[in-house]
Amino acid sequence: MAKKFADLRAQMSPEARARAQAQAQAMLAEMPLNELRQARGLSQKMLAEVLHVQQPSIAKIEKRTDMYLSTLRSHIEAMGGELEVVARFPDGAVKITNFSDLGKAAPV
Amino acid sequence: MAKKFADLRAQMSPEARARAQAQAQAMLAEMPLNELRQARGLSQKMLAEVLHVQQPSIAKIEKRTDMYLSTLRSHIEAMGGELEVVARFPDGAVKITNFSDLGKAAPV
Repeated sequence: MAKKFADLRAQMSPEARARAQAQAQAMLAEMPLNELRQARGLSQKMLAEVLHVQQPSIAKIEKRTDMYLSTLRSHIEAMGGELEVVARFPDGAVKITNFSDLGKAAPV
Repeated sequence: MAKKFADLRAQMSPEARARAQAQAQAMLAEMPLNELRQARGLSQKMLAEVLHVQQPSIAKIEKRTDMYLSTLRSHIEAMGGELEVVARFPDGAVKITNFSDLGKAAPV
């Protein structure tokens, strides 16, 4: 049986809820993939080596506005991160777990 | 020029950082798409109507472990939510903005 939002959130005080919401929003920087790579101190060449692809493939991925989740996951993992897919609603956020088992050998 | 993690996080006190991290983790429920739909009080049929597809398409999407970001975005938006793509690192999290302009007419 699915977990209900009401149950999940009933365990938090209103203050805790508001604080968590505000801070969760505040801590998230927003940037595109190429800026994230630069912020991690990585070059396209370094990323290409980790992923065993040619550098232009990295450049291409950084320009895309749509891709397979598996491709994005590989890309983020190559930078040392972890992909999180979140559905945000006015009354809360949920991490989507369908994609946790994606292999690392993703289509590029 | 890319924003540096150091700059972004320097603006928070260590206590604020730890609290934000703990609460950001705590508030995120985790579930697969079908449970999320049920938690939102929606049936596959309702979702199919919103997306102008047949019910089996919804069932199929809920079973997938990989898909285009645009497909997932449409699916989450049909439930009244917003897709957030986050790269989480040991020293912080970043919302990836490449996919903000995805159209709603996604490949299914």
